[in-house]
Amino acid sequence: MNRVLAHTGARYPIVQAPMGWIARAPLASAVSRAGGLGIIETSSGETTACQAEIAKMLATGLPFGVNLPIRFLKDDAMLRYVCDSGIRFVTTSAGSPAKFIAPLHDAGIVVYHAVPTLDTALKCVDAGIDGLVVEGSEGGGFKNPEEVSTLVLLQAIRERVQVPLIAAGGIVDGRGMAAAFALGAEGIQMGTRFVSSRESPVHANYKNAIVGADATGTWVLNKKSTPCIRALKTGFTATIHEQGLMPPETFKGIRSVYFDGDMEAAPALAGQSAGLIHEIKSAQQIIEDTVAEFFAITRRLAALGTAATFN
Amino acid sequence: MNRVLAHTGARYPIVQAPMGWIARAPLASAVSRAGGLGIIETSSGETTACQAEIAKMLATGLPFGVNLPIRFLKDDAMLRYVCDSGIRFVTTSAGSPAKFIAPLHDAGIVVYHAVPTLDTALKCVDAGIDGLVVEGSEGGGFKNPEEVSTLVLLQAIRERVQVPLIAAGGIVDGRGMAAAFALGAEGIQMGTRFVSSRESPVHANYKNAIVGADATGTWVLNKKSTPCIRALKTGFTATIHEQGLMPPETFKGIRSVYFDGDMEAAPALAGQSAGLIHEIKSAQQIIEDTVAEFFAITRRLAALGTAATFN
Repeated sequence: MNRVLAHTGARYPIVQAPMGWIARAPLASAVSRAGGLGIIETSSGETTACQAEIAKMLATGLPFGVNLPIRFLKDDAMLRYVCDSGIRFVTTSAGSPAKFIAPLHDAGIVVYHAVPTLDTALKCVDAGIDGLVVEGSEGGGFKNPEEVSTLVLLQAIRERVQVPLIAAGGIVDGRGMAAAFALGAEGIQMGTRFVSSRESPVHANYKNAIVGADATGTWVLNKKSTPCIRALKTGFTATIHEQGLMPPETFKGIRSVYFDGDMEAAPALAGQSAGLIHEIKSAQQIIEDTVAEFFAITRRLAALGTAATFN
Repeated sequence: MNRVLAHTGARYPIVQAPMGWIARAPLASAVSRAGGLGIIETSSGETTACQAEIAKMLATGLPFGVNLPIRFLKDDAMLRYVCDSGIRFVTTSAGSPAKFIAPLHDAGIVVYHAVPTLDTALKCVDAGIDGLVVEGSEGGGFKNPEEVSTLVLLQAIRERVQVPLIAAGGIVDGRGMAAAFALGAEGIQMGTRFVSSRESPVHANYKNAIVGADATGTWVLNKKSTPCIRALKTGFTATIHEQGLMPPETFKGIRSVYFDGDMEAAPALAGQSAGLIHEIKSAQQIIEDTVAEFFAITRRLAALGTAATFN
């Protein structure tokens, strides 16, 4: 039994990451309709707009989730809305979920927390979390400055906790999914892959920059301060990279990156996986290709396992 | 057919990394005797001593390899020795292998080059390399400052080249091996795991520091200069980490770290995989556990593949 499927109600354990402003109903519903799990973001801080997006998702009747980024929430309005709305699945991130778990559980909601280290994973399990999104350092967006890769982090967490794990960071299709499952994950989450999907609301310049980037096409920035982020190499991020510090107003122009395609207005968040993305696909194509490739790889490995030989 | 086995003559496609001063006959012969592939280092620059180690390995009749770190070789003495000695398998690293491939091939030697990026991999294939050691940024020792994880790098290289790949970085056993094979590797290389093996010649303090470290227990140092390295967090490396630059004399005390157990004499090189190593094992135990776990995981995945379901 795959516990991520049991927890989410999705057809496939393929989750779309909660990118601020981007992870709204058009993208999330395309993912959920294709059998994955769309997630609605609330990190934009646009409470009313995000509540409207959640209402749209509820109206579809499709399985979906909501992300609650703890440090970014101004008050408990979003938590209360989520608890009262009939939502079934929530991911928390960016802060300790300890105080959120009880009210969410009381509302019948399953809670996964996104963790970048083993220490955080152990604390979440102690607090009663239902599952973890294991975020390797390859991933885009807000990062822990202590970088641990998806390969190592999955192993380190899997050997110490019993709850289901969703692997995130460096995964764009069935190859990464099969590797993650080999390491004990029961699901995957993809961000950069869905940012560059056909249904993603971002400007073509952003999608094309992801398609054009290679695996060395991102930087981890602001490692000695907060927030530490991974973003595409651009003129804008080159300055931050050189100076080693990120000014407070860095994200002021983020919507110009996303929606006007001005790639020099703010850091264009993306993971190393940009180097593995070579075309813009629909959410349905991404999910169908991922599932087909996952099973093709498990069958190839099966032949080795059955024969117990490397030849 | 597993091409790494065909190229190396080993029983299992499990390669021991060529750590300077450490990867000599006592460790390499233990690995080869257990069915893996021991490698003799020459990066120490101790030409006569390394030639004696190679002679010891030749006398065992076991399969093994030699590493030629191109930038570290003072002259062509080691290349000539290797070509004349009857050695079958060489890994090159630290520089372009282009000029080494023809003489090695003329001597009937198979050549794999260690690569940290897709660009380097493509150049090596153009130059006629037989295979690649794909070195993800998780690994210990000398690194490319452009960090690409094993998960992402394997995918990026596999989709562009046809030669066999050995995955390195973040792998300590059959979990990582199964993940690497899911991504198209035909072998794995382990460094930190064998540094901390029973037959490794390093001081108990070094082995215990690896066993005691967690997955966040290393730093990448000197990223804006050369050499860029990954090493355990110690007082010595904390200073380099804070200053961001590594003085030229940094490695003067490396033998004191290795053989006197003075962990503050120089950077103690290690990968993120230190967080996955919890005991000192013999080379034989490491290899037997790896093979058994690899096949257990491929059989678990086989069940999913056969049923074509995630449940």
